[in-house]
Amino acid sequence: MSRDWQLEVYLQERVKLVETALDHYLPSAATLPANLHDAMRYSVFAGGKRLRPVLMMAACEAVGGTPQQVLPAACAIEMIHSYSLIHDDLPAMDDDDFRRGKPTNHKVYGEASAILAGDGLLTEAFILLSNPEVWIDLPAERRCEVINLFARSAGSRGMVGGQMVDMESEGQTVDLPTLEYIHTRKTGALMLAAIESGAILGGANRQQRRSLCRYGEAAGLAFQIADDILDIVADQQQLGKDVGSDLQRGKATYPALLGLDGARERARELRELAFASLDAFGESAQPLRAIADYIVDRSF
Amino acid sequence: MSRDWQLEVYLQERVKLVETALDHYLPSAATLPANLHDAMRYSVFAGGKRLRPVLMMAACEAVGGTPQQVLPAACAIEMIHSYSLIHDDLPAMDDDDFRRGKPTNHKVYGEASAILAGDGLLTEAFILLSNPEVWIDLPAERRCEVINLFARSAGSRGMVGGQMVDMESEGQTVDLPTLEYIHTRKTGALMLAAIESGAILGGANRQQRRSLCRYGEAAGLAFQIADDILDIVADQQQLGKDVGSDLQRGKATYPALLGLDGARERARELRELAFASLDAFGESAQPLRAIADYIVDRSF
Repeated sequence: MSRDWQLEVYLQERVKLVETALDHYLPSAATLPANLHDAMRYSVFAGGKRLRPVLMMAACEAVGGTPQQVLPAACAIEMIHSYSLIHDDLPAMDDDDFRRGKPTNHKVYGEASAILAGDGLLTEAFILLSNPEVWIDLPAERRCEVINLFARSAGSRGMVGGQMVDMESEGQTVDLPTLEYIHTRKTGALMLAAIESGAILGGANRQQRRSLCRYGEAAGLAFQIADDILDIVADQQQLGKDVGSDLQRGKATYPALLGLDGARERARELRELAFASLDAFGESAQPLRAIADYIVDRSF
Repeated sequence: MSRDWQLEVYLQERVKLVETALDHYLPSAATLPANLHDAMRYSVFAGGKRLRPVLMMAACEAVGGTPQQVLPAACAIEMIHSYSLIHDDLPAMDDDDFRRGKPTNHKVYGEASAILAGDGLLTEAFILLSNPEVWIDLPAERRCEVINLFARSAGSRGMVGGQMVDMESEGQTVDLPTLEYIHTRKTGALMLAAIESGAILGGANRQQRRSLCRYGEAAGLAFQIADDILDIVADQQQLGKDVGSDLQRGKATYPALLGLDGARERARELRELAFASLDAFGESAQPLRAIADYIVDRSF
Protein backbone atom coordinates (compact mmCIF):
# COMPACT_ATOMS: atom_id res chain seq x y z
CA MET A 1 0.00 0.00 0.00
CA SER A 2 2.65 2.46 1.09
CA ARG A 3 4.86 1.19 -1.75
CA ASP A 4 2.09 1.84 -4.27
CA TRP A 5 1.67 5.34 -3.01
CA GLN A 6 5.40 5.98 -3.29
CA LEU A 7 5.50 4.72 -6.86
CA GLU A 8 2.65 7.02 -7.78
CA VAL A 9 4.49 10.06 -6.42
CA TYR A 10 7.75 8.89 -8.00
CA LEU A 11 6.07 8.53 -11.39
CA GLN A 12 4.23 11.85 -11.13
CA GLU A 13 7.40 13.79 -10.36
CA ARG A 14 9.35 12.23 -13.20
CA VAL A 15 6.54 12.46 -15.73
CA LYS A 16 6.30 16.15 -14.90
CA LEU A 17 10.04 16.61 -15.44
CA VAL A 18 9.85 14.87 -18.82
CA GLU A 19 6.77 16.71 -20.02
CA THR A 20 8.19 20.09 -19.08
CA ALA A 21 11.40 19.21 -20.94
CA LEU A 22 9.49 17.89 -23.97
CA ASP A 23 7.57 21.14 -24.16
CA HIS A 24 10.85 23.03 -23.99
CA TYR A 25 12.75 20.93 -26.53
CA LEU A 26 10.05 20.43 -29.17
CA PRO A 27 9.69 23.25 -31.72
CA SER A 28 6.77 25.45 -30.64
CA ALA A 29 3.48 25.21 -32.51
CA ALA A 30 4.23 28.74 -33.79
CA THR A 31 7.46 27.61 -35.48
CA LEU A 32 7.03 27.21 -39.23
CA PRO A 33 5.63 24.99 -40.63
CA ALA A 34 3.08 25.50 -37.87
CA ASN A 35 0.76 22.64 -38.87
CA LEU A 36 3.63 20.19 -38.85
CA HIS A 37 4.82 21.20 -35.39
CA ASP A 38 1.24 21.19 -34.16
CA ALA A 39 0.85 17.60 -35.43
CA MET A 40 4.15 16.55 -33.82
CA ARG A 41 3.09 18.04 -30.48
CA TYR A 42 -0.41 16.56 -30.68
CA SER A 43 0.87 13.00 -30.51
CA VAL A 44 3.65 13.65 -28.02
CA PHE A 45 1.17 15.27 -25.64
CA ALA A 46 -1.72 12.86 -26.26
CA GLY A 47 -1.26 11.41 -22.81
CA GLY A 48 1.20 8.51 -22.69
CA LYS A 49 2.52 6.96 -19.50
CA ARG A 50 6.10 8.10 -20.32
CA LEU A 51 7.20 4.59 -19.38
CA ARG A 52 10.44 4.69 -21.39
CA PRO A 53 11.63 8.02 -19.94
CA VAL A 54 10.72 6.86 -16.43
CA LEU A 55 12.57 3.56 -16.90
CA MET A 56 15.61 5.50 -18.13
CA MET A 57 15.54 7.76 -15.07
CA ALA A 58 15.04 4.82 -12.72
CA ALA A 59 18.00 2.98 -14.27
CA CYS A 60 20.16 6.10 -13.97
CA GLU A 61 19.12 6.52 -10.34
CA ALA A 62 19.80 2.84 -9.64
CA VAL A 63 23.49 3.48 -10.34
CA GLY A 64 23.60 6.75 -8.42
CA GLY A 65 22.68 9.28 -11.11
CA THR A 66 19.93 11.88 -11.16
CA PRO A 67 16.81 12.09 -13.36
CA GLN A 68 17.98 15.49 -14.66
CA GLN A 69 21.10 13.90 -16.12
CA VAL A 70 19.15 11.90 -18.70
CA LEU A 71 16.50 14.49 -19.63
CA PRO A 72 17.53 15.06 -23.28
CA ALA A 73 17.72 11.29 -23.88
CA ALA A 74 14.43 10.75 -22.04
CA CYS A 75 12.74 13.28 -24.32
CA ALA A 76 14.41 11.81 -27.40
CA ILE A 77 13.19 8.30 -26.65
CA GLU A 78 9.67 9.58 -26.09
CA MET A 79 9.81 11.34 -29.47
CA ILE A 80 10.91 8.09 -31.12
CA HIS A 81 8.13 6.22 -29.33
CA SER A 82 5.54 8.82 -30.45
CA TYR A 83 6.77 8.65 -34.06
CA SER A 84 6.41 4.88 -34.04
CA LEU A 85 2.82 5.10 -32.79
CA ILE A 86 1.88 7.67 -35.44
CA HIS A 87 3.26 5.50 -38.25
CA ASP A 88 1.84 2.26 -36.78
CA ASP A 89 -1.64 3.79 -36.67
CA LEU A 90 -1.62 4.84 -40.36
CA PRO A 91 -4.29 3.40 -42.67
CA ALA A 92 -1.62 1.42 -44.58
CA MET A 93 -0.41 -0.09 -41.30
CA ASP A 94 -2.71 -0.94 -38.36
CA ASP A 95 -5.37 1.55 -39.49
CA ASP A 96 -6.36 2.67 -36.01
CA ASP A 97 -8.73 5.60 -35.51
CA PHE A 98 -8.17 5.98 -31.78
CA ARG A 99 -5.27 5.80 -29.39
CA ARG A 100 -5.44 6.53 -25.68
CA GLY A 101 -9.06 7.56 -26.25
CA LYS A 102 -8.16 10.29 -28.74
CA PRO A 103 -8.32 10.37 -32.55
CA THR A 104 -5.04 9.20 -34.05
CA ASN A 105 -2.73 11.71 -35.73
CA HIS A 106 -3.85 11.01 -39.30
CA LYS A 107 -7.52 11.32 -38.28
CA VAL A 108 -6.83 14.86 -37.07
CA TYR A 109 -4.17 16.11 -39.50
CA GLY A 110 -4.54 13.83 -42.52
CA GLU A 111 -2.30 11.04 -43.70
CA ALA A 112 0.43 13.11 -45.38
CA SER A 113 0.92 15.30 -42.31
CA ALA A 114 0.94 12.26 -40.04
CA ILE A 115 3.70 10.60 -42.06
CA LEU A 116 5.73 13.82 -41.95
CA ALA A 117 5.01 14.40 -38.25
CA GLY A 118 6.42 10.93 -37.56
CA ASP A 119 9.45 11.60 -39.74
CA GLY A 120 9.94 14.94 -37.98
CA LEU A 121 9.77 13.41 -34.49
CA LEU A 122 12.26 10.66 -35.30
CA THR A 123 14.66 13.22 -36.70
CA GLU A 124 14.08 15.64 -33.81
CA ALA A 125 15.25 12.92 -31.41
CA PHE A 126 18.64 12.89 -33.11
CA ILE A 127 18.83 16.69 -33.22
CA LEU A 128 18.38 16.67 -29.45
CA LEU A 129 20.76 13.80 -28.69
CA SER A 130 23.56 15.32 -30.76
CA ASN A 131 23.15 18.87 -29.46
CA PRO A 132 26.03 19.61 -27.06
CA GLU A 133 24.16 22.52 -25.45
CA VAL A 134 21.39 20.44 -23.86
CA TRP A 135 23.75 18.13 -21.98
CA ILE A 136 25.44 18.75 -18.65
CA ASP A 137 29.12 17.82 -18.99
CA LEU A 138 28.54 14.79 -21.19
CA PRO A 139 31.54 13.86 -23.36
CA ALA A 140 30.77 13.57 -27.09
CA GLU A 141 31.86 9.92 -26.92
CA ARG A 142 28.91 9.19 -24.60
CA ARG A 143 26.48 11.18 -26.73
CA CYS A 144 27.51 9.12 -29.75
CA GLU A 145 27.14 5.91 -27.78
CA VAL A 146 23.55 6.80 -26.84
CA ILE A 147 22.76 7.89 -30.42
CA ASN A 148 24.05 4.57 -31.75
CA LEU A 149 22.09 2.63 -29.15
CA PHE A 150 18.84 4.47 -29.90
CA ALA A 151 19.28 4.21 -33.67
CA ARG A 152 20.05 0.49 -33.56
CA SER A 153 17.10 -0.14 -31.25
CA ALA A 154 14.70 1.88 -33.40
CA GLY A 155 15.96 0.71 -36.80
CA SER A 156 15.35 -2.10 -39.24
CA ARG A 157 16.91 -4.75 -36.98
CA GLY A 158 15.04 -3.31 -34.00
CA MET A 159 11.67 -1.61 -33.65
CA VAL A 160 10.98 -1.02 -37.35
CA GLY A 161 11.94 -4.64 -38.08
CA GLY A 162 9.54 -5.86 -35.39
CA GLN A 163 6.70 -3.83 -36.90
CA MET A 164 7.54 -5.25 -40.34
CA VAL A 165 7.34 -8.88 -39.18
CA ASP A 166 4.20 -8.05 -37.19
CA MET A 167 2.56 -6.71 -40.38
CA GLU A 168 3.72 -9.73 -42.39
CA SER A 169 2.34 -12.11 -39.76
CA GLU A 170 -1.20 -10.77 -39.78
CA GLY A 171 -3.70 -13.53 -40.47
CA GLN A 172 -0.89 -16.12 -40.39
CA THR A 173 -0.26 -18.84 -37.85
CA VAL A 174 2.61 -17.58 -35.74
CA ASP A 175 4.72 -19.70 -33.39
CA LEU A 176 6.21 -18.57 -30.09
CA PRO A 177 9.74 -17.87 -31.45
CA THR A 178 8.27 -15.58 -34.13
CA LEU A 179 6.08 -13.85 -31.56
CA GLU A 180 9.10 -13.26 -29.32
CA TYR A 181 11.07 -12.03 -32.36
CA ILE A 182 8.34 -9.47 -33.02
CA HIS A 183 7.98 -8.26 -29.47
CA THR A 184 11.62 -8.14 -28.42
CA ARG A 185 11.98 -5.74 -31.35
CA LYS A 186 8.69 -3.90 -31.73
CA THR A 187 8.38 -2.83 -28.09
CA GLY A 188 11.26 -4.52 -26.27
CA ALA A 189 14.15 -2.91 -28.13
CA LEU A 190 13.24 0.66 -27.21
CA MET A 191 12.46 -0.21 -23.59
CA LEU A 192 15.81 -1.94 -23.33
CA ALA A 193 17.48 1.10 -24.90
CA ALA A 194 15.79 3.28 -22.29
CA ILE A 195 17.24 1.20 -19.47
CA GLU A 196 20.67 0.80 -21.05
CA SER A 197 21.02 4.50 -21.83
CA GLY A 198 19.99 5.31 -18.26
CA ALA A 199 22.78 3.02 -17.10
CA ILE A 200 25.33 4.56 -19.48
CA LEU A 201 24.41 8.14 -18.58
CA GLY A 202 24.39 7.34 -14.86
CA GLY A 203 27.93 5.99 -15.10
CA ALA A 204 27.18 2.29 -14.56
CA ASN A 205 30.10 -0.13 -14.46
CA ARG A 206 30.09 -3.12 -16.80
CA GLN A 207 28.47 -5.48 -14.29
CA GLN A 208 25.72 -3.00 -13.40
CA ARG A 209 25.03 -2.33 -17.04
CA ARG A 210 24.69 -6.05 -17.78
CA SER A 211 22.31 -6.54 -14.85
CA LEU A 212 20.16 -3.59 -15.87
CA CYS A 213 19.97 -4.92 -19.44
CA ARG A 214 18.72 -8.24 -18.11
CA TYR A 215 16.10 -6.32 -16.16
CA GLY A 216 15.20 -4.37 -19.30
CA GLU A 217 14.74 -7.47 -21.44
CA ALA A 218 12.47 -9.12 -18.90
CA ALA A 219 10.46 -5.98 -18.13
CA GLY A 220 10.05 -5.18 -21.83
CA LEU A 221 8.64 -8.59 -22.68
CA ALA A 222 6.44 -8.59 -19.56
CA PHE A 223 5.05 -5.24 -20.67
CA GLN A 224 4.11 -6.62 -24.08
CA ILE A 225 2.46 -9.73 -22.61
CA ALA A 226 0.49 -7.53 -20.22
CA ASP A 227 -0.54 -5.38 -23.18
CA ASP A 228 -1.75 -8.43 -25.09
CA ILE A 229 -3.73 -9.57 -22.05
CA LEU A 230 -5.22 -6.11 -21.59
CA ASP A 231 -6.28 -6.04 -25.22
CA ILE A 232 -8.52 -9.00 -24.48
CA VAL A 233 -9.84 -8.23 -21.02
CA ALA A 234 -9.94 -4.47 -20.59
CA ASP A 235 -13.01 -2.50 -21.44
CA GLN A 236 -12.72 0.06 -24.17
CA GLN A 237 -12.66 3.08 -21.90
CA GLN A 238 -9.74 1.80 -19.89
CA LEU A 239 -7.62 1.15 -22.94
CA GLY A 240 -8.79 3.89 -25.28
CA LYS A 241 -8.72 1.64 -28.32
CA ASP A 242 -10.98 -1.02 -29.74
CA VAL A 243 -11.11 -4.00 -27.41
CA GLY A 244 -9.90 -7.25 -28.87
CA SER A 245 -8.71 -5.35 -31.94
CA ASP A 246 -5.54 -7.44 -32.16
CA LEU A 247 -7.63 -10.60 -32.15
CA GLN A 248 -10.05 -9.31 -34.79
CA ARG A 249 -7.11 -8.44 -36.97
CA GLY A 250 -5.67 -11.92 -36.64
CA LYS A 251 -2.59 -10.58 -34.86
CA ALA A 252 -0.38 -12.97 -32.98
CA THR A 253 -0.60 -12.47 -29.20
CA TYR A 254 0.64 -14.28 -26.11
CA PRO A 255 -2.85 -15.17 -24.83
CA ALA A 256 -3.66 -16.62 -28.27
CA LEU A 257 -0.57 -18.86 -28.07
CA LEU A 258 -0.38 -19.61 -24.33
CA GLY A 259 -3.95 -19.07 -23.19
CA LEU A 260 -4.89 -16.28 -20.79
CA ASP A 261 -3.59 -18.13 -17.72
CA GLY A 262 -0.42 -19.22 -19.51
CA ALA A 263 0.27 -15.65 -20.57
CA ARG A 264 -0.23 -14.38 -17.00
CA GLU A 265 2.10 -17.10 -15.71
CA ARG A 266 4.75 -16.02 -18.25
CA ALA A 267 4.39 -12.38 -17.17
CA ARG A 268 4.91 -13.42 -13.54
CA GLU A 269 8.01 -15.43 -14.44
CA LEU A 270 9.44 -12.43 -16.24
CA ARG A 271 8.80 -10.24 -13.20
CA GLU A 272 10.77 -12.70 -11.07
CA LEU A 273 13.57 -12.57 -13.64
CA ALA A 274 13.52 -8.78 -13.54
CA PHE A 275 13.66 -8.82 -9.73
CA ALA A 276 16.52 -11.34 -9.70
CA SER A 277 18.59 -9.22 -12.06
CA LEU A 278 18.45 -6.39 -9.50
CA ASP A 279 19.81 -8.55 -6.66
CA ALA A 280 23.11 -6.69 -6.45
CA PHE A 281 21.33 -3.33 -6.17
CA GLY A 282 19.95 -2.01 -2.91
CA GLU A 283 17.39 0.68 -2.20
CA SER A 284 18.42 2.67 -5.27
CA ALA A 285 16.72 0.05 -7.48
CA GLN A 286 13.43 0.21 -5.58
CA PRO A 287 11.74 2.27 -8.35
CA LEU A 288 12.75 -0.32 -10.98
CA ARG A 289 11.26 -3.10 -8.83
CA ALA A 290 8.04 -1.16 -8.29
CA ILE A 291 7.77 -0.46 -12.04
CA ALA A 292 8.15 -4.19 -12.83
CA ASP A 293 5.31 -4.85 -10.38
CA TYR A 294 3.21 -2.13 -11.93
CA ILE A 295 3.79 -3.47 -15.46
CA VAL A 296 2.69 -6.99 -14.57
CA ASP A 297 -0.10 -6.03 -12.17
CA ARG A 298 -1.86 -4.14 -14.97
CA SER A 299 -2.78 -7.47 -16.50
CA PHE A 300 -4.45 -9.02 -13.47
CA MET B 1 35.19 19.33 -73.87
CA SER B 2 38.18 18.06 -71.98
CA ARG B 3 36.70 19.48 -68.76
CA ASP B 4 33.44 17.59 -69.38
CA TRP B 5 35.32 14.37 -69.91
CA GLN B 6 37.25 14.88 -66.67
CA LEU B 7 34.05 15.52 -64.73
CA GLU B 8 32.59 12.30 -66.10
CA VAL B 9 35.57 10.28 -64.88
CA TYR B 10 35.59 12.14 -61.58
CA LEU B 11 31.91 11.38 -61.03
CA GLN B 12 32.22 7.73 -62.08
CA GLU B 13 35.06 7.08 -59.66
CA ARG B 14 33.27 8.68 -56.73
CA VAL B 15 29.90 7.15 -57.51
CA LYS B 16 31.59 3.76 -57.53
CA LEU B 17 33.21 4.43 -54.15
CA VAL B 18 29.86 5.44 -52.66
CA GLU B 19 27.91 2.54 -54.14
CA THR B 20 30.45 -0.01 -52.96
CA ALA B 21 30.31 1.50 -49.48
CA LEU B 22 26.48 1.63 -49.49
CA ASP B 23 26.38 -2.05 -50.38
CA HIS B 24 28.78 -2.72 -47.52
CA TYR B 25 27.05 -0.60 -44.89
CA LEU B 26 23.41 -1.45 -45.63
CA PRO B 27 22.07 -4.61 -44.00
CA SER B 28 22.16 -7.41 -46.58
CA ALA B 29 18.91 -8.55 -48.20
CA ALA B 30 19.39 -11.81 -46.27
CA THR B 31 19.31 -10.02 -42.90
CA LEU B 32 15.96 -10.41 -41.16
CA PRO B 33 13.44 -9.03 -41.85
CA ALA B 34 14.51 -9.84 -45.40
CA ASN B 35 11.63 -8.07 -47.17
CA LEU B 36 12.32 -4.87 -45.28
CA HIS B 37 16.02 -4.86 -46.15
CA ASP B 38 15.18 -5.77 -49.72
CA ALA B 39 12.84 -2.76 -49.89
CA MET B 40 15.46 -0.47 -48.37
CA ARG B 41 18.07 -1.63 -50.87
CA TYR B 42 15.67 -1.39 -53.81
CA SER B 43 15.33 2.37 -53.49
CA VAL B 44 18.94 3.07 -52.57
CA PHE B 45 20.10 1.17 -55.66
CA ALA B 46 17.38 2.39 -58.02
CA GLY B 47 19.93 4.47 -59.90
CA GLY B 48 20.36 7.96 -58.47
CA LYS B 49 23.08 10.38 -59.49
CA ARG B 50 24.60 10.32 -55.95
CA LEU B 51 24.82 14.09 -56.22
CA ARG B 52 24.88 14.70 -52.44
CA PRO B 53 27.70 12.21 -51.77
CA VAL B 54 29.69 13.59 -54.70
CA LEU B 55 29.19 17.17 -53.50
CA MET B 56 30.38 16.10 -50.05
CA MET B 57 33.50 14.50 -51.47
CA ALA B 58 34.20 17.48 -53.70
CA ALA B 59 33.89 19.87 -50.75
CA CYS B 60 36.20 17.69 -48.68
CA GLU B 61 38.72 17.58 -51.52
CA ALA B 62 38.48 21.34 -52.00
CA VAL B 63 39.99 21.80 -48.53
CA GLY B 64 42.62 19.10 -48.99
CA GLY B 65 40.78 16.00 -47.76
CA THR B 66 40.15 12.69 -49.51
CA PRO B 67 36.88 11.15 -50.70
CA GLN B 68 37.50 8.13 -48.44
CA GLN B 69 37.41 10.35 -45.36
CA VAL B 70 33.73 11.16 -45.79
CA LEU B 71 32.44 7.76 -46.95
CA PRO B 72 30.23 6.94 -43.93
CA ALA B 73 28.66 10.42 -44.06
CA ALA B 74 28.30 10.18 -47.85
CA CYS B 75 26.39 6.91 -47.47
CA ALA B 76 24.31 8.30 -44.61
CA ILE B 77 23.18 11.32 -46.60
CA GLU B 78 22.24 9.09 -49.55
CA MET B 79 20.15 6.92 -47.19
CA ILE B 80 18.38 10.05 -45.91
CA HIS B 81 17.81 11.20 -49.49
CA SER B 82 16.42 7.76 -50.48
CA TYR B 83 14.10 7.70 -47.46
CA SER B 84 12.74 11.12 -48.39
CA LEU B 85 12.00 9.98 -51.94
CA ILE B 86 10.20 6.83 -50.74
CA HIS B 87 7.96 8.83 -48.40
CA ASP B 88 7.40 11.65 -50.92
CA ASP B 89 6.20 9.13 -53.52
CA LEU B 90 3.59 7.54 -51.22
CA PRO B 91 -0.08 7.64 -52.25
CA ALA B 92 -0.87 10.01 -49.37
CA MET B 93 1.89 12.37 -50.53
CA ASP B 94 2.82 12.93 -54.20
CA ASP B 95 1.35 9.56 -55.27
CA ASP B 96 4.00 8.79 -57.87
CA ASP B 97 4.12 5.38 -59.56
CA PHE B 98 7.51 5.82 -61.20
CA ARG B 99 10.84 7.33 -60.26
CA ARG B 100 13.96 7.21 -62.42
CA GLY B 101 12.02 4.99 -64.83
CA LYS B 102 11.33 2.32 -62.20
CA PRO B 103 8.22 1.56 -60.14
CA THR B 104 8.30 3.43 -56.84
CA ASN B 105 8.91 1.55 -53.60
CA HIS B 106 5.26 1.25 -52.57
CA LYS B 107 4.32 -0.04 -56.04
CA VAL B 108 6.77 -2.91 -55.57
CA TYR B 109 6.55 -3.65 -51.84
CA GLY B 110 3.22 -2.13 -50.80
CA GLU B 111 2.52 0.96 -48.80
CA ALA B 112 3.22 -0.38 -45.29
CA SER B 113 6.62 -1.75 -46.29
CA ALA B 114 7.49 1.48 -48.09
CA ILE B 115 6.73 3.56 -44.99
CA LEU B 116 8.88 1.21 -42.89
CA ALA B 117 11.66 1.08 -45.49
CA GLY B 118 11.84 4.87 -45.35
CA ASP B 119 11.84 4.84 -41.55
CA GLY B 120 14.55 2.18 -41.61
CA LEU B 121 16.78 4.14 -44.00
CA LEU B 122 16.52 7.36 -42.00
CA THR B 123 17.42 5.49 -38.84
CA GLU B 124 20.22 3.54 -40.55
CA ALA B 125 21.86 6.84 -41.46
CA PHE B 126 22.23 7.67 -37.76
CA ILE B 127 23.43 4.15 -36.92
CA LEU B 128 26.21 4.67 -39.43
CA LEU B 129 27.13 8.23 -38.46
CA SER B 130 27.37 7.35 -34.76
CA ASN B 131 29.32 4.11 -35.24
CA PRO B 132 32.94 4.75 -34.19
CA GLU B 133 34.20 1.71 -36.12
CA VAL B 134 33.41 3.03 -39.60
CA TRP B 135 35.39 6.25 -39.17
CA ILE B 136 39.10 6.78 -39.62
CA ASP B 137 40.41 8.75 -36.63
CA LEU B 138 37.40 11.02 -36.35
CA PRO B 139 36.87 12.47 -32.86
CA ALA B 140 33.40 11.86 -31.38
CA GLU B 141 32.95 15.64 -31.22
CA ARG B 142 33.08 15.79 -35.03
CA ARG B 143 30.77 12.81 -35.44
CA CYS B 144 28.23 14.54 -33.22
CA GLU B 145 28.60 17.75 -35.18
CA VAL B 146 27.80 15.95 -38.45
CA ILE B 147 24.88 14.09 -36.85
CA ASN B 148 23.43 17.36 -35.59
CA LEU B 149 23.91 19.00 -39.00
CA PHE B 150 22.23 16.15 -40.87
CA ALA B 151 19.34 15.88 -38.40
CA ARG B 152 18.65 19.62 -38.47
CA SER B 153 18.82 19.65 -42.27
CA ALA B 154 16.50 16.65 -42.62
CA GLY B 155 14.05 17.55 -39.86
CA SER B 156 10.89 19.57 -39.42
CA ARG B 157 12.67 22.93 -39.92
CA GLY B 158 14.56 21.49 -42.88
CA MET B 159 13.68 18.89 -45.49
CA VAL B 160 10.54 17.50 -43.82
CA GLY B 161 9.29 21.06 -43.24
CA GLY B 162 9.85 21.88 -46.92
CA GLN B 163 7.84 18.85 -47.99
CA MET B 164 5.06 19.86 -45.59
CA VAL B 165 4.75 23.37 -47.03
CA ASP B 166 5.02 21.94 -50.55
CA MET B 167 2.05 19.64 -49.81
CA GLU B 168 0.07 22.49 -48.25
CA SER B 169 0.72 24.71 -51.26
CA GLU B 170 -0.65 22.32 -53.87
CA GLY B 171 -3.31 24.01 -55.97
CA GLN B 172 -2.67 27.33 -54.17
CA THR B 173 -1.18 30.50 -55.57
CA VAL B 174 2.36 30.60 -54.28
CA ASP B 175 4.65 33.63 -54.31
CA LEU B 176 8.41 33.62 -54.81
CA PRO B 177 9.32 33.83 -51.07
CA THR B 178 7.16 30.78 -50.33
CA LEU B 179 8.65 28.90 -53.26
CA GLU B 180 12.17 29.68 -52.01
CA TYR B 181 11.10 28.66 -48.49
CA ILE B 182 10.01 25.27 -49.86
CA HIS B 183 13.05 24.64 -51.98
CA THR B 184 15.78 25.86 -49.65
CA ARG B 185 14.37 23.24 -47.25
CA LYS B 186 12.99 20.41 -49.38
CA THR B 187 16.08 19.93 -51.52
CA GLY B 188 18.45 22.72 -50.56
CA ALA B 189 18.94 21.82 -46.90
CA LEU B 190 20.34 18.35 -47.54
CA MET B 191 22.57 19.54 -50.39
CA LEU B 192 23.94 22.27 -48.15
CA ALA B 193 24.49 19.69 -45.40
CA ALA B 194 26.42 17.55 -47.88
CA ILE B 195 28.76 20.42 -48.68
CA GLU B 196 29.11 21.63 -45.09
CA SER B 197 29.84 18.15 -43.73
CA GLY B 198 32.42 17.65 -46.49
CA ALA B 199 34.05 20.88 -45.30
CA ILE B 200 33.91 19.84 -41.62
CA LEU B 201 35.29 16.36 -42.27
CA GLY B 202 38.01 17.71 -44.57
CA GLY B 203 39.19 20.04 -41.82
CA ALA B 204 38.10 23.36 -43.35
CA ASN B 205 38.90 26.56 -41.49
CA ARG B 206 36.08 28.97 -40.66
CA GLN B 207 36.54 31.07 -43.79
CA GLN B 208 36.62 28.03 -46.09
CA ARG B 209 33.55 26.60 -44.45
CA ARG B 210 31.63 29.83 -44.92
CA SER B 211 32.62 30.03 -48.60
CA LEU B 212 31.63 26.42 -49.23
CA CYS B 213 28.25 27.00 -47.55
CA ARG B 214 27.64 29.95 -49.89
CA TYR B 215 28.49 27.63 -52.78
CA GLY B 216 26.11 25.00 -51.37
CA GLU B 217 23.19 27.40 -51.03
CA ALA B 218 23.58 28.65 -54.59
CA ALA B 219 24.15 25.21 -56.11
CA GLY B 220 21.22 23.70 -54.20
CA LEU B 221 18.78 26.32 -55.41
CA ALA B 222 20.15 26.14 -58.95
CA PHE B 223 19.60 22.38 -58.87
CA GLN B 224 15.97 22.81 -57.91
CA ILE B 225 15.32 25.42 -60.58
CA ALA B 226 16.94 23.15 -63.17
CA ASP B 227 14.72 20.32 -61.94
CA ASP B 228 11.63 22.47 -62.33
CA ILE B 229 12.69 23.41 -65.85
CA LEU B 230 13.40 19.77 -66.74
CA ASP B 231 9.96 18.77 -65.50
CA ILE B 232 8.50 20.97 -68.22
CA VAL B 233 10.85 20.40 -71.14
CA ALA B 234 12.35 16.91 -70.81
CA ASP B 235 10.74 13.94 -72.46
CA GLN B 236 9.52 11.21 -70.18
CA GLN B 237 12.33 8.80 -70.91
CA GLN B 238 15.01 11.26 -69.94
CA LEU B 239 13.41 12.02 -66.60
CA GLY B 240 11.81 8.71 -65.73
CA LYS B 241 8.67 10.32 -64.36
CA ASP B 242 5.56 11.87 -65.83
CA VAL B 243 6.43 15.01 -67.79
CA GLY B 244 4.84 18.17 -66.52
CA SER B 245 3.57 16.25 -63.51
CA ASP B 246 4.32 19.17 -61.18
CA LEU B 247 2.29 21.47 -63.40
CA GLN B 248 -0.66 19.07 -63.61
CA ARG B 249 -0.64 18.77 -59.85
CA GLY B 250 -0.72 22.54 -59.47
CA LYS B 251 2.68 22.56 -57.79
CA ALA B 252 4.56 25.80 -57.48
CA THR B 253 7.62 25.90 -59.73
CA TYR B 254 10.16 28.52 -60.80
CA PRO B 255 9.15 28.46 -64.48
CA ALA B 256 5.53 29.00 -63.44
CA LEU B 257 6.54 32.08 -61.45
CA LEU B 258 9.40 33.47 -63.55
CA GLY B 259 8.68 32.01 -66.99
CA LEU B 260 11.02 29.51 -68.65
CA ASP B 261 13.55 32.16 -69.68
CA GLY B 262 13.39 33.89 -66.32
CA ALA B 263 14.01 30.59 -64.53
CA ARG B 264 17.01 29.85 -66.76
CA GLU B 265 18.38 33.33 -66.10
CA ARG B 266 18.02 32.76 -62.33
CA ALA B 267 19.85 29.41 -62.62
CA ARG B 268 22.70 31.14 -64.47
CA GLU B 269 22.93 33.85 -61.82
CA LEU B 270 23.14 31.21 -59.12
CA ARG B 271 25.94 29.48 -60.99
CA GLU B 272 27.89 32.75 -61.06
CA LEU B 273 27.28 33.09 -57.32
CA ALA B 274 28.52 29.54 -56.77
CA PHE B 275 31.64 30.26 -58.84
CA ALA B 276 32.32 33.52 -57.00
CA SER B 277 32.13 31.80 -53.62
CA LEU B 278 35.01 29.55 -54.73
CA ASP B 279 37.32 32.50 -55.65
CA ALA B 280 39.72 31.82 -52.79
CA PHE B 281 40.11 28.18 -53.82
CA GLY B 282 42.42 27.04 -56.57
CA GLU B 283 42.56 23.83 -58.58
CA SER B 284 41.22 21.79 -55.64
CA ALA B 285 37.78 23.32 -56.17
CA GLN B 286 37.67 22.46 -59.88
CA PRO B 287 35.24 19.55 -59.30
CA LEU B 288 32.84 21.84 -57.42
CA ARG B 289 32.93 24.31 -60.32
CA ALA B 290 32.35 21.57 -62.88
CA ILE B 291 29.42 20.23 -60.84
CA ALA B 292 27.81 23.68 -60.72
CA ASP B 293 28.13 23.81 -64.50
CA TYR B 294 26.66 20.35 -64.83
CA ILE B 295 23.69 21.20 -62.58
CA VAL B 296 22.76 24.28 -64.55
CA ASP B 297 23.56 22.91 -68.03
CA ARG B 298 21.03 20.11 -67.53
CA SER B 299 18.28 22.68 -67.92
CA PHE B 300 19.37 24.09 -71.30
